[in-house]
Order: sequence, then structure tokens, then C-alpha cells
Amino acid sequence: MGRFSGKSVFITQVTDYMGTPIEQLMLAEGAKVTTREGYVPGDERFADYIADVPEPDIVIANLAHSPCNGPAGDIRDEDWFALFDTMVHPLMKLVRHFAPRMANRGAGKIVAITSAAPLRGIPGFSAYCAARGAQNAFIRAAGLEFAPANVQINAVAQNYVSNPVYYPDELVATERFQKHLQRNVPVGRIARAEESAELALFLASDKSDFIVGQIVPFAGGWATNT
Amino acid sequence: MGRFSGKSVFITQVTDYMGTPIEQLMLAEGAKVTTREGYVPGDERFADYIADVPEPDIVIANLAHSPCNGPAGDIRDEDWFALFDTMVHPLMKLVRHFAPRMANRGAGKIVAITSAAPLRGIPGFSAYCAARGAQNAFIRAAGLEFAPANVQINAVAQNYVSNPVYYPDELVATERFQKHLQRNVPVGRIARAEESAELALFLASDKSDFIVGQIVPFAGGWATNT
Amino acid sequence: MGRFSGKSVFITQVTDYMGTPIEQLMLAEGAKVTTREGYVPGDERFADYIADVPEPDIVIANLAHSPCNGPAGDIRDEDWFALFDTMVHPLMKLVRHFAPRMANRGAGKIVAITSAAPLRGIPGFSAYCAARGAQNAFIRAAGLEFAPANVQINAVAQNYVSNPVYYPDELVATERFQKHLQRNVPVGRIARAEESAELALFLASDKSDFIVGQIVPFAGGWATNT
Amino acid sequence: MGRFSGKSVFITQVTDYMGTPIEQLMLAEGAKVTTREGYVPGDERFADYIADVPEPDIVIANLAHSPCNGPAGDIRDEDWFALFDTMVHPLMKLVRHFAPRMANRGAGKIVAITSAAPLRGIPGFSAYCAARGAQNAFIRAAGLEFAPANVQINAVAQNYVSNPVYYPDELVATERFQKHLQRNVPVGRIARAEESAELALFLASDKSDFIVGQIVPFAGGWATNT
Repeated sequence: MGRFSGKSVFITQVTDYMGTPIEQLMLAEGAKVTTREGYVPGDERFADYIADVPEPDIVIANLAHSPCNGPAGDIRDEDWFALFDTMVHPLMKLVRHFAPRMANRGAGKIVAITSAAPLRGIPGFSAYCAARGAQNAFIRAAGLEFAPANVQINAVAQNYVSNPVYYPDELVATERFQKHLQRNVPVGRIARAEESAELALFLASDKSDFIVGQIVPFAGGWATNT
Repeated sequence: MGRFSGKSVFITQVTDYMGTPIEQLMLAEGAKVTTREGYVPGDERFADYIADVPEPDIVIANLAHSPCNGPAGDIRDEDWFALFDTMVHPLMKLVRHFAPRMANRGAGKIVAITSAAPLRGIPGFSAYCAARGAQNAFIRAAGLEFAPANVQINAVAQNYVSNPVYYPDELVATERFQKHLQRNVPVGRIARAEESAELALFLASDKSDFIVGQIVPFAGGWATNT
Repeated sequence: MGRFSGKSVFITQVTDYMGTPIEQLMLAEGAKVTTREGYVPGDERFADYIADVPEPDIVIANLAHSPCNGPAGDIRDEDWFALFDTMVHPLMKLVRHFAPRMANRGAGKIVAITSAAPLRGIPGFSAYCAARGAQNAFIRAAGLEFAPANVQINAVAQNYVSNPVYYPDELVATERFQKHLQRNVPVGRIARAEESAELALFLASDKSDFIVGQIVPFAGGWATNT
Repeated sequence: MGRFSGKSVFITQVTDYMGTPIEQLMLAEGAKVTTREGYVPGDERFADYIADVPEPDIVIANLAHSPCNGPAGDIRDEDWFALFDTMVHPLMKLVRHFAPRMANRGAGKIVAITSAAPLRGIPGFSAYCAARGAQNAFIRAAGLEFAPANVQINAVAQNYVSNPVYYPDELVATERFQKHLQRNVPVGRIARAEESAELALFLASDKSDFIVGQIVPFAGGWATNT
């Protein structure tokens, strides 16, 4: 009997970002997990992406895209729109689709895996910060809106968490990156993916029903906003 | 001799939101003001919108759209995309175009007129919060990026400021709205447009060269985040 | 075998605020719990208060005092200093005493139970906000400082949680308070003490080793700062 | 005719921190300035400190003390209490004394010169962060409380501003400090004291009547919280 026995969980874009570690932890805790691979479409193909997904108790809105970093003066239109098409518009569509159904059933949880980057701002990542900032702001407002219906919507705003998209092992191993860590991340290391997954599970559990619309920084002390 | 004598200022979407009050105050302070009317296009028509605009010392990124409020479960695609098309993508294009030129000249100011809504989140305004949140996050990151080049980029994150788009006089005059004000806005009134314009001018002036990437709440105490 | 089997936990001022619910949950999860009753002295009597406390793996810095609310113009010196003497100075002394010992042992957790009040500010509670704000700021800085030593220091910044000090049942039952809740707390209810205790346990557990210096709002959506 | 002609201004602890630059700018702008030197007493001697101060339109609560930095495990009681005695308790006493009088007269401004340090937290400065955090939280709550009475109370939360207490010229000139600046302060320099004074004057002016309870970061991009 795990912490999520009997719970049905839907995880998007599962082979990227925090998808696999959350899936594994959810399975280990007894959840019934449905997953979909690949970018969640932000357009009319969205309906196909979620077709046949059983009504979930919990949605893990795991949306990620290469950060497309570079100077703000050189942002390419295709990069800019790709960030919004894969991370921002699908998040709205997931909440728009699932949250009212959860409200009708009287309970539900949505946990978005976003980023701490917009909490401080990072030079050279302005496009990424904009898209992640849109996500965080949307989660905050939607979280307050669905709170009275016993649906809790929150976000894990992570940075410096091991994952192939943003912190592949070969980057982390470099001396330059290790120096950067010592200077910028008080914990002095990057997090294992499982550690971020644990926060996601806490926010997906019955234990956190009083937490809504919250963007929880998870960045080893790099961002401690409140 | 005004505070902005000899300064050239470019104001977008001037007949909406804070455009006119900022234009009037800038003119009264001696600035040379260039304006454009109507939504700033976020697509390939952007180049036309800013064609023939003289190189400005100061850009007022005044971008606004009806909030398209309503339940998150009922967000219409056309409303969602209209908010991003008129407020988010054009802001990137304005910064991408003007900030590097300012950096090359060794000085410049961009002031975005955004919103305090995403700082707290407002149920029923999740689409609007998402778009304004994207703006705020972009300004923060771009502000840090251009800081070393002596270009200051900041935002006025306002709420409860008199303007025809969001707070038309007939709404403000209602008893219901006045009660709402007493309960939610410590100052107990909405701001005159000129008051917000004064903050924009402070951020556009030489007096605030040490302030960068800052989203300044301007909401009568409704939002006091730091 | 509970989540805290083999862990030794020290809880201060246990019969007030979140002391008892955290003690009960810790005991149910297998922890060895040491408690002390009454205000933690902020002066030379501090040493007596913690005398004979076994070296704890986890310290729950549970410090509370009547909010002494009232107009800022009428703050009584004795109330003001009582708030700092019971909540602020003892928190420093607890961290000063225990955190370096934890660092020497190579691991440890301190969870302070503070308040969300200073995150937004509450008219009529300026003294209380000042004292709680001092706690939150101290936890943030100390949390960053001890992060490299594998000691995690964080705070639960709660509001609208059932407890005899601030939200006694007879207050909560009034129609006036229920109306206040509907208007100001998106979740529409106060939290059970156990719900806040669950967040404290999450922050006290091995699962949150990457979270440091964080002030986690726990207020049903009343405060959602990040 | 200056911006503050006819206004009476009271500045505390004038020979330290931002006292002199604010005094000079206020005098240049036509204000009648009353000053007191030395720490503002937080005890029964407070009444003597402000005796004979004419009723001011504007109070500049300029309170500073050596940061007494060092490891949290080594905080000396006398340093800890000195920080609260000189920065925290006097701020309450200034607001408690002057704000109600301003409310009775129907207008007034209090600008506290505090610090951005608690907005991010600084290892090794936990005592200083605690005291400055208490100030910021008190200003936020008191600012909301006096807002309906047309009294505006705000803070300049500065860091990296030239002043003899925290950033003496001989420190700033070191190569080590210059490297630190390049890494941590996006603007790449420390601010002149006059720049911070300009923000204080903006918050003390009639132009900012809609801004209340706000802690405005002024730190060259080091802290950009909202």
C-alpha cells in the first residue's frame, strides 16, 4: 500500500524533464499512471494528445523545451514561439480541460513542473524566463480560482535539478560548472531528479490540501523568494 | 526646461492604457515624443509599426488588451492568443529591436507598463495574469541582461489605476466597486492616470539609473510584494 | 517503521501553536521526541531551557505569542518587546546553538513555525508582522549559510491554521469570521493543525534536502508570494 | 522653487548612512530640514531625541548600524541586541509617534532607509538580515494601516550604495570587491549616495501618493524581488 494507492495520475511529456522520475515514484507509491510522450500540442492537436486518457485524480503538467538561450537582441522568432507553443499554451489547455472536471468531481490536483528562472531573472535566458513566468503566473491565478472547489493547483519552480534537458551529466561534470555551483547555489550541488519528484508528490498528495496557487522554489537556495 | 528636455521618447499604443497621460507628462517636461496608435503587432507587421520611428532615448512599452476575464475552464482560444499577440510577443520585439541599439549608443531606458495582477493572482483572470506574468518575467531577465550596457529596463506593475480599458469611470462609480475598493485597496481609491505616469517618468529618468529589472508594484497597497 | 524512525526531534514551547500536532505526528512516524513547555527565553535563561535536551537531528522552532494586535499608534512597549523576546531572540539562540552542532555532525534540520502575516502585511498587526518578519529574514539568511554543511533550515509561514493562540474555535465559528474567510482565503476554510504539521514534517524529512532558506507560505491562498 | 518648497522634513541619525545625501538633496529642493545626530534610542530616551522637532510633513527614518557580520554560530548577544536597539525598536517608535499625528493632519510621508539584504538573505549576515527584515515587515504593515488616512509609509531597500558605514571607498576600491561586483551586481558598480536619495525623495513626494507599504529594492539588479 503506497501513498498513492488507488490514485490515477496523468503525466505529460513523460520522457523529458521530470516525467520519468515522477512516474517511477508514483508507481512505487501505488498510483495508476497514464503517460503521454512528446510535446503537448498547444493547438488543435491537443485533443488528440489527451484522447483516451482516463479521468485522472492528479495531473502532472510536465512541460519542457530547450531553453533557447542567447542574447535578447538575437532571439529568433521560431525559438520564442516554440517556447510558448510547448510550455505555455499547453499548460492552459491542460488546466482548462482537467480542472473543471476535477471541480465537478469535488477533488483533484494539478502540479506543474516549471522553473525558478523567472523568480530571479537570468541574463541570456529572457525568452525562457518569459515563458516560465507565464506558466507561474497562470498557475497562481488558476490555483486561487479552483481552490474553493477543492482542486489544488501548484507548481514546482525548480532550477539546478539533474535532467537531460537542462543539466546533462557532461555539463555538470565540468570544472567550470562546478565552480558556478559553488558560487551560486548554496547547497553546492545539483539535485537528483528524485528529490524534485518528492516535492511534486507532496504537492500531489492529500497532505497538502491547504496549499493552492503556490509556486514553490526548488533550487538549492539559488532562489528563496517569498 | 523640463526634466526630459532634449530626450526623445517613443510611446506605443498611445491612445490606450497609460499612453496619453505619459505622453502629456513627457511633453510637459520637454521631451520630443513619437507615438504610434493601435496594437503593436507581434508578427511580421512589427517592422511596419516602428518604421520611421526616430532612435529613441526612452521607449514606453505601453501594451494593453481587454482582460478577457472569465472562468479558466471557459477561456476561448482566440482570447488567449489575442492577449499574447498584443501584450507579450510585441514586448519581446520592442526590447529585441531597441535595447541593443541603446546598448550600442551607451545609454537608454525602456519602461513597460504591465500589471500587478500576476503578483497576487486573480481568480477569473488567469489568461490575463499569464500574459502579464510573461511580460514581468521578460522585463526582469532583460533588465538584468542590459544593465551592464547602461540600459535600464523596468516595469510599472499597476492595478487600480483609472483608465478606459480596465477601470472606466462608469464602473468606478458603482457602489459595488466602491465597496470592493474599500475592502481590497488600502489607499481606498483608484489612482489618477497621472500618478502612474509619474512613476513611469521616474523610471525613465536619469535619476533611476541604478534600478534595473525591477517590477514596481503600483496598486495602492493591493500588492506589496518584494 | 515510520518516516522518522530513529530520528531525535526537539520541539520548543510544545503546548502552544503547532507544538502538539507536530509532536503527535512525529511520534506516530517513529521519532524520539523531546519537548519543552513555555516560552523559550531569549535571555540568559536560554541555557536552562535547553539543558539536558539530547542532541537532536531535527529542531522544531515553534515559537508563538499572542499577536498583541491594535493600531500602530497605540503599540505598548511591553507588548512590542514581549513579541521580540519570545519569538525573535529565542529563534536566533536556537539556531546559534543547534545549527553549528548539526554542521559538525554533517547533517541536521531546523524548521521554524512562523507566519505568513509579514508576506502581505496586516493593518493592526504591525508589531506582530515586524517580529515574524525578523524570524523569516533570519531563517532565510541562516538557511543559506548552513546549506553547504548539509543542514537545512526553513520555515512554515502559516496563516489561517486552527490553533488556540490565534484561531480558537469560538472565533472561527462566528458568522463574521466565516464571511471574512470566504472573502480572503481562497480555500474557504481554516486548515486543521495536522495539515500544517504535515508541511513541517516534509521540511524536516530527508526528502527535502535541496530546500534551504525557504519561507513556505501555508495560508490557503491568502498569501502566494514567490 | 524646489520640489519640496514649504515642506518640513525630519531626518534621523543624519551623519550616517543616507542622512547627509538626503539632507543635501532636500535642502536643494527647498525643504526645511530638521536633523538629529547619532543613534535613535529605542528606549525611554527616545522622547529626548525627538524633543523640539517641529511637526514634520516628511520623516526620513534613516537608521543604521554596523552589520556585525560573522557566522550565525558566533553571533554575540551584544551585537544582536545592538542591531535591534538601533534599527528596529526606534523605527517602531518613530512611526508610532509621527504617523498618527500625520493622520490627524490628513497627510504625511515616512520613508525608511532599510536594506535589500533580507530580500535574498546573505550568509554571514543573519543578524543584520533579521533586523532589516523586521524593519521591512513593519513598514509594510504600517504602510497598509495608515494608507486610508493619506499617510504614505514606504522603504528604500538598498544594497551596494556608497556610504561610509557599509561600503567605504577603501573597500570598494579593492580588486576583490570589484570582482564581486561584476559577478553579483548586474549594473556593475555601486550606486552613488545621491542616486538612493533620489528614490527616497520620489517616495517622499506628492507624486507617489498611491504607493504604500512598499519595500522598493534598490540594488543594481542584485535583488529584483516582487
